[in-house]
Amino acid sequence: MLSNIRIILVETSHAGNIGSAARAMKTMGLSDLALVAPRKYPHPKATALASNAADLLDTATVYDTLDDAIADCDLVVGTSTRARTIPWPLLTPRAFAEQMKVEAALTKKTAVLFGREASGLTNDELHRCHYHIQIPTNPDYSSLNIACALQVIAYELRVASLPANTTPVQWDYPFATAAQMESFYEHLHRVLIDTEFLNPAVPRQLMTRLRRLFSRARLDEMEMNILRGILTAVEKNLHK
Amino acid sequence: MLSNIRIILVETSHAGNIGSAARAMKTMGLSDLALVAPRKYPHPKATALASNAADLLDTATVYDTLDDAIADCDLVVGTSTRARTIPWPLLTPRAFAEQMKVEAALTKKTAVLFGREASGLTNDELHRCHYHIQIPTNPDYSSLNIACALQVIAYELRVASLPANTTPVQWDYPFATAAQMESFYEHLHRVLIDTEFLNPAVPRQLMTRLRRLFSRARLDEMEMNILRGILTAVEKNLHK
Repeated sequence: MLSNIRIILVETSHAGNIGSAARAMKTMGLSDLALVAPRKYPHPKATALASNAADLLDTATVYDTLDDAIADCDLVVGTSTRARTIPWPLLTPRAFAEQMKVEAALTKKTAVLFGREASGLTNDELHRCHYHIQIPTNPDYSSLNIACALQVIAYELRVASLPANTTPVQWDYPFATAAQMESFYEHLHRVLIDTEFLNPAVPRQLMTRLRRLFSRARLDEMEMNILRGILTAVEKNLHK
Repeated sequence: MLSNIRIILVETSHAGNIGSAARAMKTMGLSDLALVAPRKYPHPKATALASNAADLLDTATVYDTLDDAIADCDLVVGTSTRARTIPWPLLTPRAFAEQMKVEAALTKKTAVLFGREASGLTNDELHRCHYHIQIPTNPDYSSLNIACALQVIAYELRVASLPANTTPVQWDYPFATAAQMESFYEHLHRVLIDTEFLNPAVPRQLMTRLRRLFSRARLDEMEMNILRGILTAVEKNLHK
C-alpha cells in the first residue's frame, strides 16, 4: 500500500521544506516523491533538512506541470484547509487512510498533493482531485507547515498499513501469577501487622487499596521478588 | 482536555525547532509550552518559524530542570523511539489520546516530553514518565523531526478531543431524490436509444452500469439538472 503512494509537492518555495518533507515521508515508509516546478531545487538546504532521507531527494522526479506528475495515477487527492466555492468530497486523514487500505488492491498509484507554502493548491489543481483531505485543525489557526501536514497524513497511512497488533508489548520478566500474588499479599499483610501499621481488629480498606494498587501495576516476578525481599528485610530487622 | 496538556521540550538545540513546535501545537489547539534549558532562546529563528503561533513563545515558560517543569503534573509521558534496557509501559499516540480522553476529568495536568534533536530523552528523564509514547515508524528510519513528532501526537489529541461527527459535510445543493433519479434514468434511456447507442433489443448491462455510476456519485439536484439539460440539448439536435 505505501509503495503505491506518490507525494507531490506543488511549486514549493522553500527548499528546506522539500527536505523536511522527504524526512517525514521516509519515517513513515513512503518513498515516491514528485516535485512540480519547485522554486529552488536542488538546493543544499533541502539536502540538509532531509537528514538521512536524502536518498528520497536523489530519486525524486521533477515535473513542469501537475498534469505530468499525476498522469499515471488512478487516484488523486489534495490537501486543503479552505472551504471551496464548489464543495468537493472531503475525507479526514484517517478516513482516507482506511479507504486506501480497503482499496489497496484496486488502486495502481495514488497521488497526494501538497500546495504552496503561502497559498496552497489552486482551484484548478483541487478540481483534478477525486477528493480532498482536511486535517482537523484549530479553527483559529489552521496553517500547518508542509512537512507537518505530510507527517500527519503519512502517519495515518502507515498506521492503516500495519497489521493490527503488529507490535506485541516487550517486557523483560514474566508477570506474577495469582498464586504468587496471594503469597505476596499474605507476606505484606503479616509485615504490616508486625510493624503495627495495620491493626487486624480495625483493618479498614487498607489491604484492598494495596491490592488495587499492585493489581493495576501488574507486577512482574522480578518486581514481586524485590518487594518480598524488602518485606523479609523489614521482618529480620524487627525481630532482631 | 487540550488545555490541560503541557508540551515540554527538553534541551532543544536549534531555536527554529522551538518555533516549529509552537506552530504545530497551535494548529492543534495546544497552548501550554515549557522549555527546559533550551540552548538558544529567545531567538529570532524561533519567532520566524513559529509564524502566527509566536504568541505561544511569548507565554512559554523556561525552566532550569525537567523536575521544575513537571512539578505540578499528575501525568508525565515521554516520547521515545528507542527500546530501553528496562521496558516501560508503552502506548501508541492513538491509545494515549484515547486514554487522555477517558481520564480527562481525573487528570490535572499532563506533561508530554520531547527530547534533544540528536539524543532524545535520557534514561533518567524517561524514568520520570508514567509511560512512553512511540510513534509507529519505518524500522529503517525512525528519526522524526521534533515538530513533526509533536504534530502527530497533538493531532491525535485533537482528534480524540473532538466530539464524534463534529464536522458535518457541507454541500451546496440538495441531493436528488429517488423519484428525480428515476425520471433522469428514463430520460437518459430514451436519449441513448434515440442516439442508437443503446439497442433496446440487446440492452446488456448498460443501464445497470450507468445506474451504478450515478448512484455512487450521489447526484445533487444541480448536477442532475445539468445532465438533463444535456440530454434535452441532444434530443433537440437529433430531431431538428
